[in-house]
Amino acid sequence: MFKKVDDSIRMHQEDEDYSNPPEEFIGLSDFTSCGSDQLSFRAGDRLLVHTKTSADWWWAELGGLCGYVPSSYLKQDVEGSYLKQGVEEDTSEETSEDPWQDEEYFGSYGTLRLQLEMLSDRARTETYRQVILTNSASLRGKVVMDLGCGTGVISLFCARLAQPKAVYAVEASSIAEHTETLVRQNGCEEVVTVFQGRAEELELPGTVDILISEWMGNCLLFEFMVESVLQARDRWLREGGMMWPSGASLCLVPCQALDYYTERMGFWEQPYGLDFTALQSLAQSEFFSRPRFSHLLQPEDCLATPCDVITLDMLTLHVTDLEKLRGQFTFIVEKAGTFHGFTSWFRVQFQSLERDKTTLELDTGPFSEPTHWKQTLFMLDGPISLLGGETVSGIILLHRNPVWRRHMTVTIQWRISSTEETGNCMASILYLLGVNCNSHYLKCSLIPISDRRCGMLPVKNDSLSNSPLFTTYLQVYPFYTY
Amino acid sequence: MFKKVDDSIRMHQEDEDYSNPPEEFIGLSDFTSCGSDQLSFRAGDRLLVHTKTSADWWWAELGGLCGYVPSSYLKQDVEGSYLKQGVEEDTSEETSEDPWQDEEYFGSYGTLRLQLEMLSDRARTETYRQVILTNSASLRGKVVMDLGCGTGVISLFCARLAQPKAVYAVEASSIAEHTETLVRQNGCEEVVTVFQGRAEELELPGTVDILISEWMGNCLLFEFMVESVLQARDRWLREGGMMWPSGASLCLVPCQALDYYTERMGFWEQPYGLDFTALQSLAQSEFFSRPRFSHLLQPEDCLATPCDVITLDMLTLHVTDLEKLRGQFTFIVEKAGTFHGFTSWFRVQFQSLERDKTTLELDTGPFSEPTHWKQTLFMLDGPISLLGGETVSGIILLHRNPVWRRHMTVTIQWRISSTEETGNCMASILYLLGVNCNSHYLKCSLIPISDRRCGMLPVKNDSLSNSPLFTTYLQVYPFYTY
Repeated sequence: MFKKVDDSIRMHQEDEDYSNPPEEFIGLSDFTSCGSDQLSFRAGDRLLVHTKTSADWWWAELGGLCGYVPSSYLKQDVEGSYLKQGVEEDTSEETSEDPWQDEEYFGSYGTLRLQLEMLSDRARTETYRQVILTNSASLRGKVVMDLGCGTGVISLFCARLAQPKAVYAVEASSIAEHTETLVRQNGCEEVVTVFQGRAEELELPGTVDILISEWMGNCLLFEFMVESVLQARDRWLREGGMMWPSGASLCLVPCQALDYYTERMGFWEQPYGLDFTALQSLAQSEFFSRPRFSHLLQPEDCLATPCDVITLDMLTLHVTDLEKLRGQFTFIVEKAGTFHGFTSWFRVQFQSLERDKTTLELDTGPFSEPTHWKQTLFMLDGPISLLGGETVSGIILLHRNPVWRRHMTVTIQWRISSTEETGNCMASILYLLGVNCNSHYLKCSLIPISDRRCGMLPVKNDSLSNSPLFTTYLQVYPFYTY
Repeated sequence: MFKKVDDSIRMHQEDEDYSNPPEEFIGLSDFTSCGSDQLSFRAGDRLLVHTKTSADWWWAELGGLCGYVPSSYLKQDVEGSYLKQGVEEDTSEETSEDPWQDEEYFGSYGTLRLQLEMLSDRARTETYRQVILTNSASLRGKVVMDLGCGTGVISLFCARLAQPKAVYAVEASSIAEHTETLVRQNGCEEVVTVFQGRAEELELPGTVDILISEWMGNCLLFEFMVESVLQARDRWLREGGMMWPSGASLCLVPCQALDYYTERMGFWEQPYGLDFTALQSLAQSEFFSRPRFSHLLQPEDCLATPCDVITLDMLTLHVTDLEKLRGQFTFIVEKAGTFHGFTSWFRVQFQSLERDKTTLELDTGPFSEPTHWKQTLFMLDGPISLLGGETVSGIILLHRNPVWRRHMTVTIQWRISSTEETGNCMASILYLLGVNCNSHYLKCSLIPISDRRCGMLPVKNDSLSNSPLFTTYLQVYPFYTY
């Protein structure tokens, strides 16, 4: 049990892994590569995993080709058998743990801690109140469904600020047991009816005119409550009915995050007069390979004007659309600065029931009042200096997890282009590659397309004269917050 | 599955419990009551549990007597058999899940997140640095053990700031794999030797002159790393050797916590023009029945001068002393204010190696620089107005959990006395009783000794003329933070 630390036990991860025989894994779902260092495969394919490079990305082989594959898309071949088995059977075995994690999910929303966090978010709650208030005339006589009503605050706004015919307040978590009391205490029991249960199992007296819900999560879709909203829409919203929110978009911006970077990386330089730089690569791996959900971006840290990268129309969106969403971006750097990562948030719109009336909006970004969602920061491995006028362009992909239905993987691929080849820009790119090449473990969060070649060979300036495409692979975990 | 919420399902907890037959449980460890409403029992006793009043405290019967018992001291009689079994056997069965939770415990200390939190706590780390620096002359030629060394910062201070003969840096978590690198990077490999493993399994070349360790947790003892330190002391510290810290004390003060109270309780009064007061008793139960570990007490919120309630001498303390520690307090209220709860923290002392030289101290309280431990707040169910000159006196008991060895239960019993019977004081006490009597569930965190009688009968002013003794029962969970 007890061992003295010496050189022999501090083997390099790569050496260790390469010395082990490859393990066979089975694809749970189709995966389409997002870059030349990734490997596409289909559900049921048998892959040989050579190196478990990180928890999220593995180096694997299929049909003579090698590349990175997302570990969450694979399951181990427990039988060790080469007999082809039905994938459905495998998957169902895997998912006996509830791929929706409803106990954990609804359990957390049954606590007052989460309800208080949402209610006391004034920007959020006040927006819904304003939506009801400005549409109060049009709400008269209407039937409203408030899906995931929690304590029932939106239903109470409807009943108190407008004169709807009926409000159906639907809530699956145990907080619903208190919602009915609040409805009575506020004298709304004639109008508001509370239904405790999952939206998918809902039985209502009839269709509704308006479906209102606050379903948004981190990076807009996180927790995927939106699927329940879309299913309820398809069953219970009348033809020509209104969805609130009516539209939603995911926003992105390249940004500085100097304080966060310095706190997590700069600290190791010379704490208390000691040299702790040996921990920097570990710090990079631990702190930057997962998004930071609790980020509050300062407006001055935006390196460009944020843009909507994915836009959803809540009346026409299909559940199947959620499996893969893709967006593009081209940011023009407005002022020179240090590029530490991308920050993401969302906006949702509430179209008026009356033609030509103002659409209200809830914007959770850095130029609006902070909300309990804050923003989500995806850090690069290392900082890059950017000059005004350069562009950061690329794509963002949201892949819903094929097994864990409330989770998703966020992939950001990007390149920097400058009108002229400035020395500054080149130096930055070299620095970035250096960070990757020097670390003895290969980081998943930022892998240059050509990293394996660059990692082995000395990097020459001229090999980078066409600014290479960098890829940020990031997994988003819902219940994990730094 | 799907049910409409109506009155029939909102049964009172008490009614429900009383309708069930009592269950038999077995005492895991002796329990001595701390008040007339508690029930003492011994390991192996068979108790009949009538009501699971809260997660922590149950109403039980033994030998014709009834009282509250701590649920963590009981285990279910799985056999349903009335045969007397050996308690040791029962306990070992219970503890197959590792009562020390070492995987979780050392796993968390293997992350840089925790190491960074501790290292970047300047008050903490700088105190240890000062201890080495001011004792550097006396450390020359000495053998030092740094137990739970983490990244090895204290060992490096020793090697760089003094000239010890040898430093043994002992660490059980996986961070030890990096400590050796840091030792070499700082040129200290001639002096510092890293040992990876549990202190209990340690094999050293010989005894040590000084045992230095940073073992303190919330409420001083939390996580009970101190047991490992004491075991290492008994095996490896030479006769006449020094322990750093040499002494430790737990501090307590009655306090105001108006912001915290208002945020958690006041919010429900009239949010957005609605009446949510029906949620206040739930909020009280959810937010106040567990301590708040992340509290930062403002000096002006202390209602009296803080005092040391428990004091430990690290040279003479025995592991068995940790099972039950008891302290007394008498606070004289210095200015009128609202009594919301008690706040607790710790101080540790570092005696100098040279006679008559200053003892250094790390104080984690509200009058010193904040540390990563912050302070621990134990809330009362409801606020009480206190007048200057009144006294809050009582006892605090730390009961180490008989099963989960890193956990403990904190019990605070207290009474308010005033020199004259002011109307104000009486009113406050009545209000407090009111909070308890009116809630349909019986709260564990604050139970007046006479609550069952008071709860049933109308409370008369004259029945309170001798200010009653209130008891705050609080469970402390190590890995749970609000």
